[in-house]
Amino acid sequence: MAIVLVANQYGKAKVRLLHVSRDETTHVITDLSVSVALSGELTATHLSGDNTAVLTTDAQKNAVFAFAKEHGVSEIEDFALLLARHFVASQPSISFARVTMEQYPWERLAGHSFARSGREVRTATVSHDGQQSWVVSGLHGLTVLNTAGSEFWGFAKDRYTTLTETTDRILATAVSARWRHASPAASANCWGDSYRAARDLMLEAFADTHSYSLQQTLFAMGKRVLDGRPEIAEIRLSLPNKHHFEVDMTPFGLENDGEVFYAADRPYGLIEGTVTRDDAPPSGRSW
Amino acid sequence: MAIVLVANQYGKAKVRLLHVSRDETTHVITDLSVSVALSGELTATHLSGDNTAVLTTDAQKNAVFAFAKEHGVSEIEDFALLLARHFVASQPSISFARVTMEQYPWERLAGHSFARSGREVRTATVSHDGQQSWVVSGLHGLTVLNTAGSEFWGFAKDRYTTLTETTDRILATAVSARWRHASPAASANCWGDSYRAARDLMLEAFADTHSYSLQQTLFAMGKRVLDGRPEIAEIRLSLPNKHHFEVDMTPFGLENDGEVFYAADRPYGLIEGTVTRDDAPPSGRSW
Amino acid sequence: MAIVLVANQYGKAKVRLLHVSRDETTHVITDLSVSVALSGELTATHLSGDNTAVLTTDAQKNAVFAFAKEHGVSEIEDFALLLARHFVASQPSISFARVTMEQYPWERLAGHSFARSGREVRTATVSHDGQQSWVVSGLHGLTVLNTAGSEFWGFAKDRYTTLTETTDRILATAVSARWRHASPAASANCWGDSYRAARDLMLEAFADTHSYSLQQTLFAMGKRVLDGRPEIAEIRLSLPNKHHFEVDMTPFGLENDGEVFYAADRPYGLIEGTVTRDDAPPSGRSW
Amino acid sequence: MAIVLVANQYGKAKVRLLHVSRDETTHVITDLSVSVALSGELTATHLSGDNTAVLTTDAQKNAVFAFAKEHGVSEIEDFALLLARHFVASQPSISFARVTMEQYPWERLAGHSFARSGREVRTATVSHDGQQSWVVSGLHGLTVLNTAGSEFWGFAKDRYTTLTETTDRILATAVSARWRHASPAASANCWGDSYRAARDLMLEAFADTHSYSLQQTLFAMGKRVLDGRPEIAEIRLSLPNKHHFEVDMTPFGLENDGEVFYAADRPYGLIEGTVTRDDAPPSGRSW
Repeated sequence: MAIVLVANQYGKAKVRLLHVSRDETTHVITDLSVSVALSGELTATHLSGDNTAVLTTDAQKNAVFAFAKEHGVSEIEDFALLLARHFVASQPSISFARVTMEQYPWERLAGHSFARSGREVRTATVSHDGQQSWVVSGLHGLTVLNTAGSEFWGFAKDRYTTLTETTDRILATAVSARWRHASPAASANCWGDSYRAARDLMLEAFADTHSYSLQQTLFAMGKRVLDGRPEIAEIRLSLPNKHHFEVDMTPFGLENDGEVFYAADRPYGLIEGTVTRDDAPPSGRSW
Repeated sequence: MAIVLVANQYGKAKVRLLHVSRDETTHVITDLSVSVALSGELTATHLSGDNTAVLTTDAQKNAVFAFAKEHGVSEIEDFALLLARHFVASQPSISFARVTMEQYPWERLAGHSFARSGREVRTATVSHDGQQSWVVSGLHGLTVLNTAGSEFWGFAKDRYTTLTETTDRILATAVSARWRHASPAASANCWGDSYRAARDLMLEAFADTHSYSLQQTLFAMGKRVLDGRPEIAEIRLSLPNKHHFEVDMTPFGLENDGEVFYAADRPYGLIEGTVTRDDAPPSGRSW
Repeated sequence: MAIVLVANQYGKAKVRLLHVSRDETTHVITDLSVSVALSGELTATHLSGDNTAVLTTDAQKNAVFAFAKEHGVSEIEDFALLLARHFVASQPSISFARVTMEQYPWERLAGHSFARSGREVRTATVSHDGQQSWVVSGLHGLTVLNTAGSEFWGFAKDRYTTLTETTDRILATAVSARWRHASPAASANCWGDSYRAARDLMLEAFADTHSYSLQQTLFAMGKRVLDGRPEIAEIRLSLPNKHHFEVDMTPFGLENDGEVFYAADRPYGLIEGTVTRDDAPPSGRSW
Repeated sequence: MAIVLVANQYGKAKVRLLHVSRDETTHVITDLSVSVALSGELTATHLSGDNTAVLTTDAQKNAVFAFAKEHGVSEIEDFALLLARHFVASQPSISFARVTMEQYPWERLAGHSFARSGREVRTATVSHDGQQSWVVSGLHGLTVLNTAGSEFWGFAKDRYTTLTETTDRILATAVSARWRHASPAASANCWGDSYRAARDLMLEAFADTHSYSLQQTLFAMGKRVLDGRPEIAEIRLSLPNKHHFEVDMTPFGLENDGEVFYAADRPYGLIEGTVTRDDAPPSGRSW
């Protein structure tokens, strides 16, 4: 019996980069958190502390900044592809790179003045093995709520089931979603359009699906994206059920007719699912 | 020498309330966190555990929910006034109430569907002593950034000063502001308009002030609000200086011409100031 | 009518400093977050952006680091006194300084190896006006819980009161406390002893007070500190009532005899009070 | 081409449970956050909102509380096994359950009085497919720091490498670790001992490994656990490199000889690796 190192990766996490494009009379800003994870032939540093093969995480951070200067930052998928390919191409020891981006949204107030828009954070994860690249786009923090069109009844009952069936409840969630592009090449010129369309399709499906369960809403959201966007092969959704409980006012002699709710923190439901095409290309090392 | 109880208060904090108004064909939602703090003749519970004078914090929570049902929730200042007056009027032992509200913004996606808008949180703090009420409105979490029009030079130098003077820097902050109304009665029908105008005036001043220091921007923001809104007597601003450092790229043979910045977390500058009218009415127990 | 600047202050917040004392064969580490707030004749920077009187927050940060090197860091009250006096003494425009420290606790694992101990954070706030200094010590994040010896009954009832009286409940809180030293000179050689004693006295009082209300426990904790520590003139406590609700198991045919509780996040009670001596010296600019 | 649902799971997350064992003269408390995720034949709820097969997340929460009452809570691995097996055994539609526990540590102050000890959170994840169970134990939040015995040099240099080599640096991390038991049956009577031993072995290896890279320390920690604990088949470690930068004091005419460090928040290094035995049993559905 021997004790062995198996899967391993390392890198710099959460490089906070603000890029200002001054090419135009009105500046454009891009606000990112970039994380890099590299793997390859790194046994020596683990076993003996021989760092010959280790590109420092400090140099990875510097590369993020330098690439922003040299190539600009437009779509995060493109910027992540550039970086991931660079690390594998330039370091003999590195055979696989994963670069993850979070983009924080801002809106313009006036010429050179901006306000952070607190809605969703856009994400991208690019994986590259020296030959092939995989691109996953996504978002998180998109909190949505329906005050109508949500029911929940007909569920299984066991000894511990006390929940009342309802034909009218608040449905609220904070959408986390990630979707895999069928081909980075095919999506290459439409990252931004694809992102906005996918987000809007999810919002539409959330809003117009008459829901009998959050699972049903999840599938409807995923299906809507795949129906509408041929470049997307698969989507993974994680939807917390942010419970809003109708306050019982009978002790005060009042009737609460769906007007006053208590928003609970914990526990919460958590519904997760993957929706894909049956002829989707293999996911490879996307995830 | 004796050991004595002096200032004290108690209450329920962070009651998370969602109110749905169904009076219209399209629902209206109000999403609040309500905190209550009461004070008065409460020595007995502190000294001997005699709770005769104690209105439970649980009952305070229930009152928040019940008042939302009975009176609806429109402007948070009005809702806080109702609650603060109720606690003092209904409890002989309670001589002073302070009710604080946070309102989380949502935007409508479609008929009965909403998305949380991540920008600023609106706040209100109402204080009431049985006779008089004081109203402070405000906001926090309004993150703004200028890519032009900000300089910083001519400052004092001591042994520990190493900062380089600059005529072009990123200026970024997350605005926290609270402003005192001269008279709750005079503002009574315009809470919402007043709030939106004050916020917009601060944003305008942030955007169009050519800044030589964040202090100057702070004063300009406060002055703009007072100039434009006669109902507001005083404003207190707390502005973290969210540093964005230009990355030095000379080691890589690159010139960073104001394009690539590192957004730092800590430490940060913190600039705080109060702007008022010299003939403002006394603040009483506003703060 | 004129619009005027009144109270204002500025400084660097949350300078994260780790100091390693290597004087001994076993290293000693001190892990701090230091915040500085300065005020004085700073009208010019606010009104016109003339920064002649402004010591940069960057230089303040540098001073924190340099003082740690030049003077070492032992008790946080001493370190804060040194810094506060320095800023006022060395800058003609600065007439008042407040330096706040948080100290994160670590325990030694072995010779030069340490583990962060997650219990309370020790704090100190020193204020200095050029002539006089005021010292407030404190802590936060000390979470404690009693499973016995806590009752709550005999409280006022109103229309909204539904809480059941109890003679046996869980009492849990996260202690935040700050206490004012009667004289910095008198406490000068015992900051550490005083801190540990005050903390231990609060814990003792929490543990051995048979409680009829959290207010009673608060007063007992404050009184115990003042009874035991003559150098402390006043103590302010802020105690969230971290509710633990007994789960109703009758729907499952079980009896929950004080065994299973649900720990709630929000809302929570918040009990705040100040305990002092009736002959305490005036608090001046302590708070 | 069809759009299909593939992997999916649902459940209640973060049920906050405090269990008080009153069997003894001194109470024993167990403070948990329990999350349940179930999967199985759940297509109907996703596709049509037919909830016949859905055990509500509310009932899952109730089961957590009820099982705490009926079976008590001693070791979290045992409690998770009970729950995971229950959900699969009692629900025809559920073929797989994963139950995750976080246990928050408390220490006794006196008879029935406790203080939360802020060190690591203990974790357990149990997976069960109706026939077999897999147990992963772990911890997170164990923050450790060495002031000696850490070097970093001899690393690869590229165009973006500016880091200086060092033979004496601060090494700090917050350990997240999860380890897989070779056999739940074999570990069944020693969960607590195994946990404490694994934690202590990691701490020992962190403290006594002369480190040339955090990767080397990671492997040493993993190997130490496997060497010392035959019941553990595999361990996965995630170690952020919490950078402490020596402050350059030459601008102030001071020499910083490893005494004063700036603790950075972001970015940070992130080192992740898996250490296993070459004859370990297959991991099945452990992870």
